[in-house]
Amino acid sequence: MKWYSNKGNDLDVVLSTRVRLARNLEEYPFPARLDSEGKQKVNKLLKDILLSTPCEEKLEYFDMKSFSKAQAVSLAEKHLISPEFAYDPEDRALILSENEDISIMLCEEDHARIQAILPGLAPREAYEKAAAFDRQLEENAKLAFDSKLGYLTQCPTNLGTGMRASVLLHLPALSGTAVSRLATTVAKLGMTLRPAFGDGNRAMGDIFQLSNQVTLGISEQAALQNLNSIALQIAEQEKQARTALLRDDAFIDKIWRSWGILKSAHMMSFGEFISLFSLVRLGAAEGILEIPLETLGRLLIEMQPATINADSNKDMTARERDVFRAQTVKAALE
Amino acid sequence: MKWYSNKGNDLDVVLSTRVRLARNLEEYPFPARLDSEGKQKVNKLLKDILLSTPCEEKLEYFDMKSFSKAQAVSLAEKHLISPEFAYDPEDRALILSENEDISIMLCEEDHARIQAILPGLAPREAYEKAAAFDRQLEENAKLAFDSKLGYLTQCPTNLGTGMRASVLLHLPALSGTAVSRLATTVAKLGMTLRPAFGDGNRAMGDIFQLSNQVTLGISEQAALQNLNSIALQIAEQEKQARTALLRDDAFIDKIWRSWGILKSAHMMSFGEFISLFSLVRLGAAEGILEIPLETLGRLLIEMQPATINADSNKDMTARERDVFRAQTVKAALE
Repeated sequence: MKWYSNKGNDLDVVLSTRVRLARNLEEYPFPARLDSEGKQKVNKLLKDILLSTPCEEKLEYFDMKSFSKAQAVSLAEKHLISPEFAYDPEDRALILSENEDISIMLCEEDHARIQAILPGLAPREAYEKAAAFDRQLEENAKLAFDSKLGYLTQCPTNLGTGMRASVLLHLPALSGTAVSRLATTVAKLGMTLRPAFGDGNRAMGDIFQLSNQVTLGISEQAALQNLNSIALQIAEQEKQARTALLRDDAFIDKIWRSWGILKSAHMMSFGEFISLFSLVRLGAAEGILEIPLETLGRLLIEMQPATINADSNKDMTARERDVFRAQTVKAALE
Repeated sequence: MKWYSNKGNDLDVVLSTRVRLARNLEEYPFPARLDSEGKQKVNKLLKDILLSTPCEEKLEYFDMKSFSKAQAVSLAEKHLISPEFAYDPEDRALILSENEDISIMLCEEDHARIQAILPGLAPREAYEKAAAFDRQLEENAKLAFDSKLGYLTQCPTNLGTGMRASVLLHLPALSGTAVSRLATTVAKLGMTLRPAFGDGNRAMGDIFQLSNQVTLGISEQAALQNLNSIALQIAEQEKQARTALLRDDAFIDKIWRSWGILKSAHMMSFGEFISLFSLVRLGAAEGILEIPLETLGRLLIEMQPATINADSNKDMTARERDVFRAQTVKAALE
């Protein structure tokens, strides 16, 4: 069972929490300055160390070239790897846990990018999961670390803790302008709030990613604490806005109709799916519709285009995928 | 059980058939030239004769003033009386059978307007039902009849047979332009094809009424035969157009979505209902959705605004009615 099929804290507003640690080996240049042979050496070294980390889930090592294009893009859709990592598999490798809560990119921008992902609001737990692999590295290799700067990374924005922590927030009730205002406010606190799906300002599905920007001069614990409390404050604002919205019969009507279409359409694009998903998830979170939030969370991940092709192991056209998506959603919501 | 809860012939395209006979008593002027006392006398006389007509259903006589406004408008919505009859109840009366297949307006434009209505395509059967009341009149009163002209009526367009026969056709696949062309064609054959719901050219629910225009110089049987064969020809064209439409996945998708919305909305106007109804009825008629056509036919009649108020015996606002309509439709389609 994948991580996203499990329950989590504050799931009514927070879909998931992700923590990523950037680490490099002291004795090797950053991947950008390594030749193919050097990267293969780094991958082999890190593989041997990391695969022996104590971990509840089974870990597996993949050469990125072993994945089909659809599988690679699907991994990016699931936020297990970066899009760049998906598009250029040369001399890159991935360590993945069976339930996909742990993913470690080898020879991306840094030698190792250790990521842990959990449902709901769980910054500390996600950090602990990632940190286990970090400790394993510390104990078995010499990491690039400066006593003043902290961990050294290819990109200076990661210098220090090398940690990026983020949460996915579902904010259907805080309308566009409220989210814009929030984005300005959290920027002053060293955080970024931006649409997680869709491009630019247009947030598909009203899902936003809140992440820490500061890695230098702050401890991991303080950064996680900040993220946690700001996420909780935004969630509180969202809940108040929901209460106001749900007093309106016409809005309730929209929720029911979205539910009706999701349960009955014959074909559906991902764009339409995520719009309907947003209203239905709001209805489910507020007790109007009886659907487990985990079911919806699972659909959000698995109904993405490349993930559909990868999971079904078929080279479907967009139209075939739209039919498949509609049928799968229908079946899941029965 | 009302007439519209029963099955009928060619119900996939033909919703119902209506036959109306206009009759006047020889010894009284037309209602327009009768005073109140005269009309009351006519009503009493016709009541005594008509109520004793042999009829399977229980017949009841109503002074139009005994109805509330909502009840009167509901009768018009159900095509049991004319809108004019609903708006001016003075010195007017109605004989109605329990299942509403027979309705006789007394002192509308003519002394008696005898109407029979049946589900599906059944011009002959509807005529026979109405004719039983006509025979009862012939046997018990002297009717205004001219050996050359036939039955005399207030409006010259009814002279002759005094018969107007019509069918309601559901033509979702013959798009706007195809129906316009058909209207021109049938006009040359002495028939009228026009939207049954909505105003002007905008046909709500793609439902059209085909009716005979000629009453002079033609027998009832010939007029009914014409109506029957033209209705069957239009139905055949509609079925061919449906076959072509249903090859398109995107159209099937529209049907399923309409079904989903009908089954899940929290509030719904009659205008939206009838649009969704049209696609869902098409789906049901073509075996895509498993819904009895009688259920849909019943909803089309009972979900009209005044009929909702009359049946629920409540003075609902439009918004309350929209909520009531959505809930009722949902329950009926479960």
